[in-house]
Amino acid sequence: MDLNSILSSIDNVNGKFIEAAQNRLDSLTKPQGSLGRLEEFARQVVAITENPMPALDKKAVFTFAGDHGVADEGVSAFPKAVTQQMVLNFLTGGAGINVLARHAGSDVVVVDIGVDCDFNASAEAGLKTALTSGRTFISRKIVRGTGNMRKGPAMTRAEAENCISAGVGLANEYAEKGYRIFGTGDMGIANTTPSSAITAVLTGRAVEDITGRGTGINDEIWKHKVQVIKDAIAVNRPDPSDAIDVLAKIGGAEIGGIAGLILGAAANRVPVVVDGFISTAGALIAYSIEPKTRDYMFAAHMSQEAGHRTMLEKLGLRPVLDLDLRLGEGTGAALAMFIIEAGLKIYKEMATFGEAGVSEKR
Amino acid sequence: MDLNSILSSIDNVNGKFIEAAQNRLDSLTKPQGSLGRLEEFARQVVAITENPMPALDKKAVFTFAGDHGVADEGVSAFPKAVTQQMVLNFLTGGAGINVLARHAGSDVVVVDIGVDCDFNASAEAGLKTALTSGRTFISRKIVRGTGNMRKGPAMTRAEAENCISAGVGLANEYAEKGYRIFGTGDMGIANTTPSSAITAVLTGRAVEDITGRGTGINDEIWKHKVQVIKDAIAVNRPDPSDAIDVLAKIGGAEIGGIAGLILGAAANRVPVVVDGFISTAGALIAYSIEPKTRDYMFAAHMSQEAGHRTMLEKLGLRPVLDLDLRLGEGTGAALAMFIIEAGLKIYKEMATFGEAGVSEKR
Repeated sequence: MDLNSILSSIDNVNGKFIEAAQNRLDSLTKPQGSLGRLEEFARQVVAITENPMPALDKKAVFTFAGDHGVADEGVSAFPKAVTQQMVLNFLTGGAGINVLARHAGSDVVVVDIGVDCDFNASAEAGLKTALTSGRTFISRKIVRGTGNMRKGPAMTRAEAENCISAGVGLANEYAEKGYRIFGTGDMGIANTTPSSAITAVLTGRAVEDITGRGTGINDEIWKHKVQVIKDAIAVNRPDPSDAIDVLAKIGGAEIGGIAGLILGAAANRVPVVVDGFISTAGALIAYSIEPKTRDYMFAAHMSQEAGHRTMLEKLGLRPVLDLDLRLGEGTGAALAMFIIEAGLKIYKEMATFGEAGVSEKR
Repeated sequence: MDLNSILSSIDNVNGKFIEAAQNRLDSLTKPQGSLGRLEEFARQVVAITENPMPALDKKAVFTFAGDHGVADEGVSAFPKAVTQQMVLNFLTGGAGINVLARHAGSDVVVVDIGVDCDFNASAEAGLKTALTSGRTFISRKIVRGTGNMRKGPAMTRAEAENCISAGVGLANEYAEKGYRIFGTGDMGIANTTPSSAITAVLTGRAVEDITGRGTGINDEIWKHKVQVIKDAIAVNRPDPSDAIDVLAKIGGAEIGGIAGLILGAAANRVPVVVDGFISTAGALIAYSIEPKTRDYMFAAHMSQEAGHRTMLEKLGLRPVLDLDLRLGEGTGAALAMFIIEAGLKIYKEMATFGEAGVSEKR
């Protein structure tokens, strides 16, 4: 896939659609602006889709899974095997993302983009349940775990590009299938480490300021994690003006997949709900490649992970929810989709003052 | 109905249930505590219901409607007739609360507790649609609009008590019908004025600090509204230690109904989601009558209306959502119900580490 042709088809949303949507919102039986951000979400969906009556009925959260060589440095509270174990949990429907996606009426698409194991048998099991359960397993394995970024690049530049292309390809495929809104999600033991590294490089902030506790590490391991990130940046010298270089050297396969999904969503005029810390690292990569992608993003929630606020400030996005989440998988994205859909339903389903015979403001 | 017997059946929730719920949450396939407030909501619902596997399947938002004599002082941007027009809009399903309750899977119970008109014909129409549409109209009219509180008491003490009893009665009736979670809502042109007055008296804050723009008044009318509230407090001298006196003198019928619904929810061990500014004025009344009611309340959202933050601080509640809403009707409560239900589903439906074969934290 030619990334340049994808990028050339991404444009800012057109303010005309924002204005038209607000005109309709102002005709509805409520004080003007009184539904706050619900109105904002509706306007943005109308502008993204360029459709005066869009639908968000078919939803998919894409949970990209990948392993990380840097897990060998002992930066996570959980063993690396949990990545593959959790992928199986996603396929049997017992994980947090399964519960919340069901609740929000979204499918879950589990993408193996870089897990360090062979999923053939389980993939089959996953595919069998797909039609009835809203869960699908897709293999787009680019790497079998990344390299240990403390010792060298996580991926080659070609691998990083292939991760992005895989995400773009999924966006194209699911837009074609009629899905109307995407959510991003991640699974990968140790993946807050590359996400913090990306954030430090792309925002210029100190590593200490944007490195958190991940799944729950203590003070001592946190200090070690900060040092590992500093070493990884020093060893690899990623170029902040070249997001693909950053992704390759200190990123991860699932982060690249997420970045690609966002680029593809923007190219297809599909709203994309960016989950928490790891997903927003992917969003920073996508934004650095093409800033116009921001118009297509919704920030699902404010993560508990230190550094997420810095990322959202860089992107200029205000989160939909603030529920102290720090699980990932796309859990925040699933919930935020429901709220964004609420805004769109307000826009589409409320009666106007005229229809309802309600007196307007004097 | 004897209010004292209701009050005597309200108790704080039992910490044992909180602890048991957290134990289950900690066995699920996620880092401990990583679902933040969703876990808090689940624990609280378990403790409120004293049921280790509660359900929130049957939901109802109660939208209490009443008129206000103080509307004659020109404190609102909308004419008083809008209260009754909006009740009809609720019954035909075109209002914001209808859209959001449908989205969240909740019924809407429209309660005429003090509207200044006769709803007989329309009530019939509303009742006809009730069975199929999830909308019901209930007449519990205590007053036909309140008195103008700038000139004297809004209601008699007996009327205020009857409003509370009406709310308690609805809570009893709907708990009996198997409803598992209640939301509060309001409709009443000019009702931010009594809500601000109640807040000033029950929190001791200056009227200027807790008076907002309601449906959208300009600076000049805002100054006038502040003066009207000060006059109403000076004329009526409500006793801050007697919440029923406060409700009678400077309150409103729908605010009393909401207070009663909350008291009845607590007595029936049903979680109650308190909407925005007007609903929280009702919650302040309920809390002043019986502070243990707080354990049964969820604050739906942080309203845009000035003063709401002060109310929530007084109650010690952190809102579920922050979406710049200021519509009322129960719109925020409907959305928050969905998020609270998400927390409960996490608690009930996620796989444990053992069930999923996922390794625990090292």
